[in-house]
Amino acid sequence: MIRILCISGPNLGLLGTREPDIYGRETLADIHKRIKKRASELGVTVDTKQSDVEGEIVKWIGAAPKRYAGLLLNAAAYTHTSLAIFDALKATALPCVEVHLSNPEAREAYRHESKIAGACVGKVSGFRANSYVLALEGLVAHLQK
Amino acid sequence: MIRILCISGPNLGLLGTREPDIYGRETLADIHKRIKKRASELGVTVDTKQSDVEGEIVKWIGAAPKRYAGLLLNAAAYTHTSLAIFDALKATALPCVEVHLSNPEAREAYRHESKIAGACVGKVSGFRANSYVLALEGLVAHLQK
Amino acid sequence: MIRILCISGPNLGLLGTREPDIYGRETLADIHKRIKKRASELGVTVDTKQSDVEGEIVKWIGAAPKRYAGLLLNAAAYTHTSLAIFDALKATALPCVEVHLSNPEAREAYRHESKIAGACVGKVSGFRANSYVLALEGLVAHLQK
Amino acid sequence: MIRILCISGPNLGLLGTREPDIYGRETLADIHKRIKKRASELGVTVDTKQSDVEGEIVKWIGAAPKRYAGLLLNAAAYTHTSLAIFDALKATALPCVEVHLSNPEAREAYRHESKIAGACVGKVSGFRANSYVLALEGLVAHLQK
Amino acid sequence: MIRILCISGPNLGLLGTREPDIYGRETLADIHKRIKKRASELGVTVDTKQSDVEGEIVKWIGAAPKRYAGLLLNAAAYTHTSLAIFDALKATALPCVEVHLSNPEAREAYRHESKIAGACVGKVSGFRANSYVLALEGLVAHLQK
Amino acid sequence: MIRILCISGPNLGLLGTREPDIYGRETLADIHKRIKKRASELGVTVDTKQSDVEGEIVKWIGAAPKRYAGLLLNAAAYTHTSLAIFDALKATALPCVEVHLSNPEAREAYRHESKIAGACVGKVSGFRANSYVLALEGLVAHLQK
Amino acid sequence: MIRILCISGPNLGLLGTREPDIYGRETLADIHKRIKKRASELGVTVDTKQSDVEGEIVKWIGAAPKRYAGLLLNAAAYTHTSLAIFDALKATALPCVEVHLSNPEAREAYRHESKIAGACVGKVSGFRANSYVLALEGLVAHLQK
Amino acid sequence: MIRILCISGPNLGLLGTREPDIYGRETLADIHKRIKKRASELGVTVDTKQSDVEGEIVKWIGAAPKRYAGLLLNAAAYTHTSLAIFDALKATALPCVEVHLSNPEAREAYRHESKIAGACVGKVSGFRANSYVLALEGLVAHLQK
Amino acid sequence: MIRILCISGPNLGLLGTREPDIYGRETLADIHKRIKKRASELGVTVDTKQSDVEGEIVKWIGAAPKRYAGLLLNAAAYTHTSLAIFDALKATALPCVEVHLSNPEAREAYRHESKIAGACVGKVSGFRANSYVLALEGLVAHLQK
Amino acid sequence: MIRILCISGPNLGLLGTREPDIYGRETLADIHKRIKKRASELGVTVDTKQSDVEGEIVKWIGAAPKRYAGLLLNAAAYTHTSLAIFDALKATALPCVEVHLSNPEAREAYRHESKIAGACVGKVSGFRANSYVLALEGLVAHLQK
Amino acid sequence: MIRILCISGPNLGLLGTREPDIYGRETLADIHKRIKKRASELGVTVDTKQSDVEGEIVKWIGAAPKRYAGLLLNAAAYTHTSLAIFDALKATALPCVEVHLSNPEAREAYRHESKIAGACVGKVSGFRANSYVLALEGLVAHLQK
Amino acid sequence: MIRILCISGPNLGLLGTREPDIYGRETLADIHKRIKKRASELGVTVDTKQSDVEGEIVKWIGAAPKRYAGLLLNAAAYTHTSLAIFDALKATALPCVEVHLSNPEAREAYRHESKIAGACVGKVSGFRANSYVLALEGLVAHLQK
Repeated sequence: MIRILCISGPNLGLLGTREPDIYGRETLADIHKRIKKRASELGVTVDTKQSDVEGEIVKWIGAAPKRYAGLLLNAAAYTHTSLAIFDALKATALPCVEVHLSNPEAREAYRHESKIAGACVGKVSGFRANSYVLALEGLVAHLQK
Repeated sequence: MIRILCISGPNLGLLGTREPDIYGRETLADIHKRIKKRASELGVTVDTKQSDVEGEIVKWIGAAPKRYAGLLLNAAAYTHTSLAIFDALKATALPCVEVHLSNPEAREAYRHESKIAGACVGKVSGFRANSYVLALEGLVAHLQK
Repeated sequence: MIRILCISGPNLGLLGTREPDIYGRETLADIHKRIKKRASELGVTVDTKQSDVEGEIVKWIGAAPKRYAGLLLNAAAYTHTSLAIFDALKATALPCVEVHLSNPEAREAYRHESKIAGACVGKVSGFRANSYVLALEGLVAHLQK
Repeated sequence: MIRILCISGPNLGLLGTREPDIYGRETLADIHKRIKKRASELGVTVDTKQSDVEGEIVKWIGAAPKRYAGLLLNAAAYTHTSLAIFDALKATALPCVEVHLSNPEAREAYRHESKIAGACVGKVSGFRANSYVLALEGLVAHLQK
Repeated sequence: MIRILCISGPNLGLLGTREPDIYGRETLADIHKRIKKRASELGVTVDTKQSDVEGEIVKWIGAAPKRYAGLLLNAAAYTHTSLAIFDALKATALPCVEVHLSNPEAREAYRHESKIAGACVGKVSGFRANSYVLALEGLVAHLQK
Repeated sequence: MIRILCISGPNLGLLGTREPDIYGRETLADIHKRIKKRASELGVTVDTKQSDVEGEIVKWIGAAPKRYAGLLLNAAAYTHTSLAIFDALKATALPCVEVHLSNPEAREAYRHESKIAGACVGKVSGFRANSYVLALEGLVAHLQK
Repeated sequence: MIRILCISGPNLGLLGTREPDIYGRETLADIHKRIKKRASELGVTVDTKQSDVEGEIVKWIGAAPKRYAGLLLNAAAYTHTSLAIFDALKATALPCVEVHLSNPEAREAYRHESKIAGACVGKVSGFRANSYVLALEGLVAHLQK
Repeated sequence: MIRILCISGPNLGLLGTREPDIYGRETLADIHKRIKKRASELGVTVDTKQSDVEGEIVKWIGAAPKRYAGLLLNAAAYTHTSLAIFDALKATALPCVEVHLSNPEAREAYRHESKIAGACVGKVSGFRANSYVLALEGLVAHLQK
Repeated sequence: MIRILCISGPNLGLLGTREPDIYGRETLADIHKRIKKRASELGVTVDTKQSDVEGEIVKWIGAAPKRYAGLLLNAAAYTHTSLAIFDALKATALPCVEVHLSNPEAREAYRHESKIAGACVGKVSGFRANSYVLALEGLVAHLQK
Repeated sequence: MIRILCISGPNLGLLGTREPDIYGRETLADIHKRIKKRASELGVTVDTKQSDVEGEIVKWIGAAPKRYAGLLLNAAAYTHTSLAIFDALKATALPCVEVHLSNPEAREAYRHESKIAGACVGKVSGFRANSYVLALEGLVAHLQK
Repeated sequence: MIRILCISGPNLGLLGTREPDIYGRETLADIHKRIKKRASELGVTVDTKQSDVEGEIVKWIGAAPKRYAGLLLNAAAYTHTSLAIFDALKATALPCVEVHLSNPEAREAYRHESKIAGACVGKVSGFRANSYVLALEGLVAHLQK
Repeated sequence: MIRILCISGPNLGLLGTREPDIYGRETLADIHKRIKKRASELGVTVDTKQSDVEGEIVKWIGAAPKRYAGLLLNAAAYTHTSLAIFDALKATALPCVEVHLSNPEAREAYRHESKIAGACVGKVSGFRANSYVLALEGLVAHLQK
């Protein structure tokens, strides 16, 4: 059975209260429930994690190949600054889908560039919690090819 | 019933033969079939168009509000150069999802910036033909909220 | 009798409904009427055209010297991207006045640079429909010198 | 009765002798006469001032709201360097029209950017002395709306 | 009673020995004492923390609204690189004052830009330990308005 | 027999009258005659087309592989702005030679960069009409290797 | 007795009416009163001046060492453009504190860089009128060390 | 006896499996063995550490002066982004040698700039595991001078 | 008899006390004496002026052609920021020599670019007071040709 | 009889062995033979030289007008860095054609800009040895006009 | 037996007297002796050369493959400007190690970028004369793999 | 007796025929005569050299301290590209004056930056041959201080 790791980055633990006009009103726990529900419909398993620490995300990605076939990654602010996460993705051979709740390219200029896109299969952004679900569908289809 | 317009831009008429390592082997007609099949499952209608001419795409977007509730747009190369398409999207109030077969942000630097993202709800890229299908799902869910 | 060609570019066919806070509520047809009324007061003739296609605007400019003594040009989004229109203006020897309904230099940074200004006699911007009328007056005075 | 202040900036006192190919042969006094003549036709009053000192222009703009309903401003070289004049225009709520005798965007690159445009209603450039007259017409129409 | 959280970032645990010409000879413990003394004079409470880990600072800021009315933040090197801290400040609605012992804008170019200023009420820099004290006074006055 | 398609871009229909100091006095029809004469000497066939519309050029390039073994392309102003034409050249596997009447790299800075060179075998520029003839010779030799 | 000169730059004479959301509702006279009150509490003397003219500010700074031990300087717009004021501060050996009512680094990009910071001891910004008071406290403590 | 601390940064725990064409097939444990062997030949002691967390590296550097005479630092991705590590090196007075397995300046552009070089004695890169050994030799010789 | 105007800009009134390592210990009065002594040896007249106000320098340059055959100009900080002075020099047809006491191109980067050089015959820098004398000799020889 | 000088720059003496995928397998001697053969067919004389030293190429260009009517120049790497060769071409009035074996604009970014193009009549690139032959034909036709 | 060529570039003939704080007090002859001593310990031969002329270095590199198995190259100032040396290294297939006495990345910004690193195996910098010795060891180990 | 070396760089051997509008009609031999005549009036000796080869100029500068007390250097095109000459000047402790016949800062943008100014005492430009003479006077006065 396909096992996928879903990692959410800095400040995403605050979802639900954080700038709801941009990020929506669902908490990360709500989103995790939605992902797992869709995963079970698709016949795959998803484990979920969140960290505010760049290096912890690096560590999880580095350890992922032992247990997982693919990654969903919402690196939040680290999307735009972290070469270390990019290197971690490159170092593992796992397919990764970049996820965003908002559409960062429609926001401030410093959110337009993704430093991790170059190590990702694809990207889903702008659908709030649904971004994770669509990314999961896309990743599963990609893995099943 | 929700009616959606799906517009594909320059060189997408060549799909199937064009650089298959990057864009896959399905033709645009194949992709249109897949979109329509998924649309009918979702209970919506999708019309599809393709043009190599920037101004024709501008025209279609400008005329869309009379018949459509939303847009799927793969502007291909014009994604990175067309302020006119951006203005057309802004001028209409229709939700639009940006679609790409490949993951442009993982390719050459001049494909990293989308000049139209600022007028789009969200983006799906990198899943080849499946990008259109996921974008459709995301757009329909967005419209039904 | 002095004959002038007035060309409006992409998305200007949508005027009246398009972002009225920025562009006003008059349609392009209303504006054309205003221009022609003022033209007849000044004793000149103005023909009006609109296109969303960059190449069509290029063609009209290229053909203009056979019938017209001067140009009014609101190139809209192509103002900021079209070297082809700049070249067309250079290729003909006709005096051209750049026109804008809004004041693009007071808007987003990518609207600050005009790629066609270098081939224009002057510029009138920010007076909504009245920009065309003032530009016509300025051009006629310029031609009568 | 509408009262307007017309301010001309550095080196404009030299008009008539200064690079006549670019700026024309009329003196600033000639231009002021033309403006006042047109003003009286339009039923408004225009006061005119000139200064080479940035801070003096700042002061005049700051004091303007007490007596004037709008501004015509040819800031000349300060157009491209003065954040202080931009701030002065922002600080007063008066509509201001940017005026230029030549078409600065068709000249050297450092004349392409206007640092004050962001605080102006609109712009008229390239018609030599007539730029002031057209700007006056545009401003009066704007104020009468 | 107003309760404030004071966070100091990377390398500030080394104060007293670290480049004393730039940062002074007081240790962070000395500074904390000075802050608390002034706080008690002002009738407010200040808790103090220090971390070298960006993600830990993010976490503290995210958790702050439950207990604190405002923040004093000396993000040290992360001032110039951390979008994650900026996002954390935006995500909470707490007023934050940026603090620096030295005057970073008078030092190397890469210290001139603050990536977190956009989410701060104000800034005090250059007064060594006294920067914290003045920032505290400013924040308390701001909160009492 | 080798069959080659020669495409000329925007404003080239004006040749003969357009800035003759830069582009020479031959019309495009004259140049087409010269190309065909040389082609028949070399034992190959050349078809010639001109368009002011970027998308039309894209379309012709996309359709070329069915009938042609190589391309001569003078994209004029689109040379410096069109990623769509670059993509079209990449999408077909046809050898293409970039042609210019003038030497754009010896002119204004914005003419120094060719956005299509990366998809071309080589380049001939600066010899006016003769540029096309030399490019034809080079392309034919290239195809015969 | 320590004697300090407090200089305010362009447009600050308009305080109270100028964009009160950004700058507050106190006039410069109100602020001067507050500064002097605090000065007398601290046992120092402060003289206050305001000018819209860059060169006048330069002159005052140049003459300051004869009568003053330190400077408070709110250079307003000149903060971001004046190398002459920077040179004046360097030329005198007086400690100077940069003051701002708003937090310029949280506003438009062109207000992020201070051209005078390099010649200042420190900076206080964002506390409206209170910025001056805190800066005074900081400067006095600095001078008494 | 000279005691040296050798710190390896993010993703280096994956060595041996991570992109072996670039980084070689030795694990970090293998490399540590090689370093210690050479250290004992040179009559010095080397302790080794690895972390994916920027702040942890900062902490180790800050604490180093109490036990170590010098540092070997392979900051991996943080080499190109971490001002905090640079500040930590500056804050301690220890000689540090920058180490890289690959030659980052021969790779992607964003790996060309080292943000920590300015606080290092020297640099050894491109010799895979041997880079550490050569750096150790260089550092020991430097310390023995 | 040739009559020359020598203008010195902001902060030059402080010479003698201002950073003597860079600018030397002579006062501006000393330098003026040296210039006039050399002028009388050369059989020409030099008038000298100093101002801290950009606009005043603009005014003096604008008025110069009525009495003077050439200019010596040490614009100090305005050298690097004043387009208005550049325009004034262009507006008059007088030969002007740029003078600097220090060698600005050997100092901070923002002193490397002269905004007025484009309107000057030549430049003498780095010889302290002697720069004025050499510039005078050069200008006189230039005028006598 | 027309006499032409053909100069080849650094590393071109290595042709035949140097990166044959990019530069082909012919040696420079082979190419020189091909040039001379074509020259004699065209009834002109070509002398050929090669140097790795920028200054030697400068010298040859400077001396050329005494014996030659035109130049063929493949400056290789100096194309992108040598202002001295550009100045030499400007200093002589000889028509020069820029030649490249490969198409530098289709290679690394730093090969896209030619610093010498501004002093050349035209350019032929991408046809390997045949580039020289086509350039010769173009130059001879140019000289015979 | 492995034979290596060691090339030193411009100004390195002045070593011993040239800025000894940066480059040390050993002469190039001293360094050459140290290299040869270490070479004989390692059982390899090193020939040494120095030139101030870029083209001479290009020539030596081009000729190296006939006699040498690898290169040590301290290109000094040409490191930062010479595309011709980069091309020479690419043209030969010899492994080259970049050497610097000082740590250029810790000095002025224009010394941070190496234009030749892209054609080198690795780099040793900052150990003064010892840089050459360590580079030799690294190169020999690399060649023996 | 003071002995000075005067070095002229690339293309200066062509003086008299090279673009006389910019550089004047005197040959380098004429200029050398003028320099020596003035030198003998001043009681100093000047030796003169010219080379088109950057490395030769580097060599002459490196050897100069043995015989000369100062340098006059017109590096021509190398002024704007040669870090090697800058390093040579730094390596010797000789005072050097930068000389130019024209005023490079009033010409094309790429002539505005001098890469060697940072190692020079001062600069004289724009007086044609007289630039050398004035520079000599300035250098002698500097040496006699």
